[in-house]
Amino acid sequence: LRTGFPEVVWGQDKTPQQIIQIIKTMRANHPVVMATRIEREVYQELRESIPDLQYYPVAKICAISSPETLPNRIGKITILTAGTADIPVAEEAAVTAELCGFQAQRLWDVGVAGIHRLLSNRHVIDEADVLIVVAGMEGALPSVVAGMADCPVIAVPTSVGYGANFSGVSPLLTMLNSCAAGIGVVNINNGFGAAILAGQILRAVQKVNPDVPVPAAIP
Amino acid sequence: LRTGFPEVVWGQDKTPQQIIQIIKTMRANHPVVMATRIEREVYQELRESIPDLQYYPVAKICAISSPETLPNRIGKITILTAGTADIPVAEEAAVTAELCGFQAQRLWDVGVAGIHRLLSNRHVIDEADVLIVVAGMEGALPSVVAGMADCPVIAVPTSVGYGANFSGVSPLLTMLNSCAAGIGVVNINNGFGAAILAGQILRAVQKVNPDVPVPAAIP
Amino acid sequence: LRTGFPEVVWGQDKTPQQIIQIIKTMRANHPVVMATRIEREVYQELRESIPDLQYYPVAKICAISSPETLPNRIGKITILTAGTADIPVAEEAAVTAELCGFQAQRLWDVGVAGIHRLLSNRHVIDEADVLIVVAGMEGALPSVVAGMADCPVIAVPTSVGYGANFSGVSPLLTMLNSCAAGIGVVNINNGFGAAILAGQILRAVQKVNPDVPVPAAIP
Amino acid sequence: LRTGFPEVVWGQDKTPQQIIQIIKTMRANHPVVMATRIEREVYQELRESIPDLQYYPVAKICAISSPETLPNRIGKITILTAGTADIPVAEEAAVTAELCGFQAQRLWDVGVAGIHRLLSNRHVIDEADVLIVVAGMEGALPSVVAGMADCPVIAVPTSVGYGANFSGVSPLLTMLNSCAAGIGVVNINNGFGAAILAGQILRAVQKVNPDVPVPAAIP
Amino acid sequence: LRTGFPEVVWGQDKTPQQIIQIIKTMRANHPVVMATRIEREVYQELRESIPDLQYYPVAKICAISSPETLPNRIGKITILTAGTADIPVAEEAAVTAELCGFQAQRLWDVGVAGIHRLLSNRHVIDEADVLIVVAGMEGALPSVVAGMADCPVIAVPTSVGYGANFSGVSPLLTMLNSCAAGIGVVNINNGFGAAILAGQILRAVQKVNPDVPVPAAIP
Amino acid sequence: LRTGFPEVVWGQDKTPQQIIQIIKTMRANHPVVMATRIEREVYQELRESIPDLQYYPVAKICAISSPETLPNRIGKITILTAGTADIPVAEEAAVTAELCGFQAQRLWDVGVAGIHRLLSNRHVIDEADVLIVVAGMEGALPSVVAGMADCPVIAVPTSVGYGANFSGVSPLLTMLNSCAAGIGVVNINNGFGAAILAGQILRAVQKVNPDVPVPAAIP
Amino acid sequence: LRTGFPEVVWGQDKTPQQIIQIIKTMRANHPVVMATRIEREVYQELRESIPDLQYYPVAKICAISSPETLPNRIGKITILTAGTADIPVAEEAAVTAELCGFQAQRLWDVGVAGIHRLLSNRHVIDEADVLIVVAGMEGALPSVVAGMADCPVIAVPTSVGYGANFSGVSPLLTMLNSCAAGIGVVNINNGFGAAILAGQILRAVQKVNPDVPVPAAIP
Amino acid sequence: LRTGFPEVVWGQDKTPQQIIQIIKTMRANHPVVMATRIEREVYQELRESIPDLQYYPVAKICAISSPETLPNRIGKITILTAGTADIPVAEEAAVTAELCGFQAQRLWDVGVAGIHRLLSNRHVIDEADVLIVVAGMEGALPSVVAGMADCPVIAVPTSVGYGANFSGVSPLLTMLNSCAAGIGVVNINNGFGAAILAGQILRAVQKVNPDVPVPAAIP
Ligand SMILES: Nc1ncnc2c1ncn2[C@@H]1O[C@H](COP(=O)(O)O)[C@@H](O)[C@H]1O
Ligand SMILES: Nc1ncnc2c1ncn2[C@@H]1O[C@H](COP(=O)(O)O)[C@@H](O)[C@H]1O
Ligand SMILES: Nc1ncnc2c1ncn2[C@@H]1O[C@H](COP(=O)(O)O)[C@@H](O)[C@H]1O
Ligand SMILES: Nc1ncnc2c1ncn2[C@@H]1O[C@H](COP(=O)(O)O)[C@@H](O)[C@H]1O
Ligand SMILES: [Mg+2]
Ligand SMILES: [Mg+2]
Ligand SMILES: [Mg+2]
Ligand SMILES: [Mg+2]
Ligand SMILES: [Mg+2]
Ligand SMILES: [Mg+2]
Ligand SMILES: [Mg+2]
Ligand SMILES: [Mg+2]
Repeated sequence: LRTGFPEVVWGQDKTPQQIIQIIKTMRANHPVVMATRIEREVYQELRESIPDLQYYPVAKICAISSPETLPNRIGKITILTAGTADIPVAEEAAVTAELCGFQAQRLWDVGVAGIHRLLSNRHVIDEADVLIVVAGMEGALPSVVAGMADCPVIAVPTSVGYGANFSGVSPLLTMLNSCAAGIGVVNINNGFGAAILAGQILRAVQKVNPDVPVPAAIP
Repeated sequence: LRTGFPEVVWGQDKTPQQIIQIIKTMRANHPVVMATRIEREVYQELRESIPDLQYYPVAKICAISSPETLPNRIGKITILTAGTADIPVAEEAAVTAELCGFQAQRLWDVGVAGIHRLLSNRHVIDEADVLIVVAGMEGALPSVVAGMADCPVIAVPTSVGYGANFSGVSPLLTMLNSCAAGIGVVNINNGFGAAILAGQILRAVQKVNPDVPVPAAIP
Repeated sequence: LRTGFPEVVWGQDKTPQQIIQIIKTMRANHPVVMATRIEREVYQELRESIPDLQYYPVAKICAISSPETLPNRIGKITILTAGTADIPVAEEAAVTAELCGFQAQRLWDVGVAGIHRLLSNRHVIDEADVLIVVAGMEGALPSVVAGMADCPVIAVPTSVGYGANFSGVSPLLTMLNSCAAGIGVVNINNGFGAAILAGQILRAVQKVNPDVPVPAAIP
Repeated sequence: LRTGFPEVVWGQDKTPQQIIQIIKTMRANHPVVMATRIEREVYQELRESIPDLQYYPVAKICAISSPETLPNRIGKITILTAGTADIPVAEEAAVTAELCGFQAQRLWDVGVAGIHRLLSNRHVIDEADVLIVVAGMEGALPSVVAGMADCPVIAVPTSVGYGANFSGVSPLLTMLNSCAAGIGVVNINNGFGAAILAGQILRAVQKVNPDVPVPAAIP
Repeated sequence: LRTGFPEVVWGQDKTPQQIIQIIKTMRANHPVVMATRIEREVYQELRESIPDLQYYPVAKICAISSPETLPNRIGKITILTAGTADIPVAEEAAVTAELCGFQAQRLWDVGVAGIHRLLSNRHVIDEADVLIVVAGMEGALPSVVAGMADCPVIAVPTSVGYGANFSGVSPLLTMLNSCAAGIGVVNINNGFGAAILAGQILRAVQKVNPDVPVPAAIP
Repeated sequence: LRTGFPEVVWGQDKTPQQIIQIIKTMRANHPVVMATRIEREVYQELRESIPDLQYYPVAKICAISSPETLPNRIGKITILTAGTADIPVAEEAAVTAELCGFQAQRLWDVGVAGIHRLLSNRHVIDEADVLIVVAGMEGALPSVVAGMADCPVIAVPTSVGYGANFSGVSPLLTMLNSCAAGIGVVNINNGFGAAILAGQILRAVQKVNPDVPVPAAIP
Repeated sequence: LRTGFPEVVWGQDKTPQQIIQIIKTMRANHPVVMATRIEREVYQELRESIPDLQYYPVAKICAISSPETLPNRIGKITILTAGTADIPVAEEAAVTAELCGFQAQRLWDVGVAGIHRLLSNRHVIDEADVLIVVAGMEGALPSVVAGMADCPVIAVPTSVGYGANFSGVSPLLTMLNSCAAGIGVVNINNGFGAAILAGQILRAVQKVNPDVPVPAAIP
Repeated sequence: LRTGFPEVVWGQDKTPQQIIQIIKTMRANHPVVMATRIEREVYQELRESIPDLQYYPVAKICAISSPETLPNRIGKITILTAGTADIPVAEEAAVTAELCGFQAQRLWDVGVAGIHRLLSNRHVIDEADVLIVVAGMEGALPSVVAGMADCPVIAVPTSVGYGANFSGVSPLLTMLNSCAAGIGVVNINNGFGAAILAGQILRAVQKVNPDVPVPAAIP
């Protein structure tokens, strides 16, 4: 990614030794390095070799960064979940957004089966620059939100559910078939990818209007 | 069905001659006879042999009935659709409900992508005895409705949609995975079955409380 | 659910600490609180913090309730299983029904491969107010039962089976395609949802006929 | 097939000219020649070249045979259908059975949603040598029949149905998952294959017990 | 099963205590009792309560029987496998066949990728009364065998394979689509069901020709 | 959509009379009205009632608009196709974009099997504000493009292909599984939805930075 | 393709005018131009603009070529089919092979249900340089052939079949799961792709051993 | 395989004792014996009985061979991976190729999301005799490579991925639908099969041109 975003390691399916080596190589050239899908036990092993490695346990993300290395970008990324079981995926998105230098606004547990929860948070949707909507089970939240919002909506299906949910296929199909236009869908549980797409959207500001100050580059 | 409901012919996959013969046999013993999935051309052929056959073109239902033969049952069946393309399936439910002797209340085009349409019809949901919710595309309407209603909800997926809709599989999965409890799902496009289930629910009144007057039996 | 039914926690995918906190919050305002999909080990951990928590091991349900808090509602919910391996799902339905204040009548192991078992229990079907029929393998029991019954039938597919059963997809399809009308289907293994739908059906009595005494509200 | 059964042409996907040529070649060496999946219009074209070709319109089978060429075999093949829409597939089986020299006993429309129809025909099942059970929709009939019968059961799913039937996949899965043992399943709509398997079963008599007279060979 | 075949317990998904109790009840009335899908550790627990319980480790079958209780039936059941990994399923069939009183003839590892192995065993196919053909991977063996044999063929797909095998779906489809007629298919890994069907086929001898001596009834 | 975008009618599954009535109602209140999935014959019928209706035959879009009613928005939408058969879907996106007031830049036939075609158009990707990448067959183009671009990428799978393409499922899965981050996927053939999402992205400029002039509202 | 193979137009989904224009452009620079998936009626329209266009009706291929323009390459491509309905796909492969300058050897109708047909053609397999094996239904032929051959085998599933064949998915899975190693699979009905792969294999001769004379380049 | 290639044991699903016995039998007659899918713990157990057994831990292959027994064949097999997680499958291919006597050239981590990595290795593709391209996730690499290469391409999908990857189904479909011709696909994770097919392709040299020296037979 030639975007000034963090360097990223996909941690799943890699041994701790592989991850350590890749992070060490990357940090030489990049101010922010992160790894996703890191279980706590793996983190503990990584930290022995990389003592300044931070851990975000709900997001299962490890990162090397510091206030001065983190860019300070324009725009915030608003993230919603339908249920509490969707929070880990939403946190993967939120922490990624923050490591990219954006502000992340979180609103959890506003699923459609209790529509009043969403309606009483209408202002969050109205004020959003870009929305990431995370939902498992039947995955109906992005449809309702996109109908209320007038900003881009990124829909993230999760594997939360059972039976005919098929590990996230049901909410994935729901989101692809949404009768509300203006929704982009990412892979099941792909909070990371949603945040990168949201970041790209906010960065588009600069390209569209050269008068907008360039987001602070990572030094 | 030993329920005092109409005798029913499944018209799809039958020749007009077969349908005519079955209706003629049935009408000898039953005050109300109906056939579903009847195209207009088929109806025109049937009517030549059965001049008093009525036709409901949107529902694609043919029926023999008259005010005096129709039972007058307790309770109404409220039917909602998400979009206009779902109306034929909803009408199959509504006409079936009426031929069973129930009152059918219709509310079309209140899909979740414009949630205000649903919210401004809240009283319809509040006053319902039993709800049939018909939706294609992503099929999210039953989840929202069931969260608002405190009566049984019957969800009917339709084959309206394209691409990853898979002819109604997407809304079917949505409805089976609803995080709102109290939803019973029927087959794709099965408006008829939804109405029969709704009718069975309203008939349950009599069994549960013997003081409630027995629904008028078909003579 | 604004229905006077218990508050419910979906226990799967939550840590014991999360469940404890949610139950403690809920019990402040609700006379009956229950949690589903709780393994015995989890229950033992929960009980240390909530000593009056009861456990229904076959149903895998935990609950806080007492005779005086349980409502005493009109109508009974009759629950059938095809095989013995379907009992845990059926018990999830039965215990939920009882915690909602209904009487649960159980009839196990009357699958269609030995049709005499069902026929010799005809009176159970005849006397039912509402039926929950639980079946895995090929899931044919609801079709036969719905043909015999004249009350609403809720069909629950289970994941019991192997090979081309696909963890409950085969009985799910069977139930959706039933040629007996009047069947509402819920998700695979969703005994809880079936009981809530049955409860909603029995509660419909009150709405349809205002002369029927209101089910005792939870104090 | 080295079995003394008819020579068979699969008519679907062949032009009339191809079918004519194959039948003419085959009849030179075989007393009975048949072709399946022949529409009436195709038959009319075939008959111009092969005047003694017979047509079985429901089964969509063409055949050349005569009483003296037909073998007279031991045993009868009993064929059941769940509904009337399954009859064409069942007739494909029945006519094939007869052209193989067996007696075919037909019992139509005894599906499980009206179990009394099956129970009042119990003697047909009791007297069967081998059963072919044809069903679409949810395809539950073979399970019930196999539980009642003590002879081999061949289950034929049909593509009759709609929605989540998936053109016969639902009854196919039902039959493969039957909890009644002793059922062999064939492809969707494969009445022909079911009859050949039934014929092979009846022919097994001879191999198992050499005292049984050899089925009359086709001269 | 009213067939003089063993009483059978499906062992999977049952606790040892449940299995012990069922076997003890059954043995009071039946000379042969068997349980399938029993792991060795489970067997060891069962044996403490039922000391005369035998174990067939490859078939994972437990049984109570003795030479004098086993019937001595007419006809043998010939069982083939494509590979060595298919043997456990084939042994489930073979041991079931033997506990039903039939002779089981085994021929392992004659898959189609080395067709000479099958061709050099042609006599086994020629002499068979009924064939059970067990295959995983692509499952092509039943097609080739059915083309060579003139007796009924029962095809058993196994879950042996990986990737696009989908745990046995690939060989299941192969067997259902076989262009060789006369094949009945059972569920994936269902060696037991195949043996029962084969047994039913051999028992059909008696019904078809009353001169054939009745298979020795279980005393 | 409260976005100043056109009012849109989904033309598929509607009769010409229905479309005419909806367009007439909409045009009373909106400067731009469009209908998608309109075949030429349908357009000809519509034009008789709405003489100023324009037709975009490749996009199969009808619209009422004029230079003065069309807004003039900031930013352009760049649209790529892999093959020529993907052009109709891409044109649905392009015309929608233009009717929303954006500039549409088209680049057709740069699929990955001839990577040089893409590489020699590198400047198009470099200069893009937001990219819509349309591809059928294996759908690999968005992965390659997203790796080259540093703006948001919207991927549109098409149903172009055959066999194991499954009417667009193959490219849909490809796009969801892309190892390039920053891709949002829409439903198969949903060029319209892609354009609306792209438009929402460009509109986000205004919200993020209030100094950017507000896109001209539709009067 | 920088291979000296013909220029190819995929004719499906293109209008005659589009095909004519593409062919005319291509023929300016290439000695051999071909188009696949051309129905006879389309050919007749094409021929009016391109009088020297040849047509191969079974293969549904159009081509411009002449003996002097056709290269004369080393090696032959041997093509087998399981049934007669597979011939069109096999001819697509054969004609493509010939237009690439290879010799095509055809052997039709040697499916595995009559294994003797294959065995009596053993010499064809023994003499093959590279094999293309085309099969629908259960698609078992490539497994048997690859076990007999010691050259590369390209397997082509066809959509010939019905029911659980799923338009070629069943033979596709069979071929991917073959327990015979050394098989490369192409898409359903993709005779063209199989021929190109076979041609690439024969061309590899030149690269591996520079002493082998370079295949005559197309002038 | 009558090809002078190693004897191979499929190690998955076999006990160490079974593998030991098969290897010991095979080594009596073959200079090179290998077993695939061998975990390290299994290898350690095997080595106690077969002390000269070598282990390739990444490929999970065990082998008995020595420089003098290994044939020295003409041609090299070039193997590419899209990502590092695909390396185990690629090593299964590479080690198999080497045990067959071919030279294996490895190029890892050149996936399409960073197309420059592939472009800067263009010479590797240009010099290849036959290519094996291994990719998980969306599996787009073979399409791009086949468009650049003019030698046969064997595509190997891996199960690397998550969510809508479906354990390798997504890259499998991608590869089957590639719009680049000349690609043969093998089963998910089947590195072994790809290497055997590549070996068969290189051996075809000899058959096509008898002047090419016969690959050294294994003595
Ligand atoms: N209706 C049918 N269903 C299934 N298989 C059939 C049917 N009719 C014919 N066949 C099979 O197709 C073979 C003939 O195929 P063909 O040589 O293509 O005409 C016969 O030997 C039968 O095995
Ligand atoms: N291995 C097996 N495969 C398929 N069905 C089996 C098997 N073992 C037992 N069964 C069936 O399971 C029934 C017993 O089920 P249960 O009453 O749950 O123990 C038997 O009557 C058989 O029909
Ligand atoms: N080509 C299209 N693809 C996807 N969605 C569309 C398309 N055209 C219209 N729509 C959506 O359909 C809605 C109108 O649907 P309807 O009210 O049924 O006409 C619009 O608001 C759009 O969101
Ligand atoms: N890793 C592998 N992937 C695919 N097929 C394999 C693999 N290893 C071995 N085989 C095949 O399995 C056969 C041996 O199977 P088996 O006789 O069960 O050990 C070999 O001849 C190969 O065709
Ligand atoms: Mg919106
Ligand atoms: Mg509710
Ligand atoms: Mg009923
Ligand atoms: Mg039976
Ligand atoms: Mg045979
Ligand atoms: Mg990028
Ligand atoms: Mg070979
Ligand atoms: Mg190439």
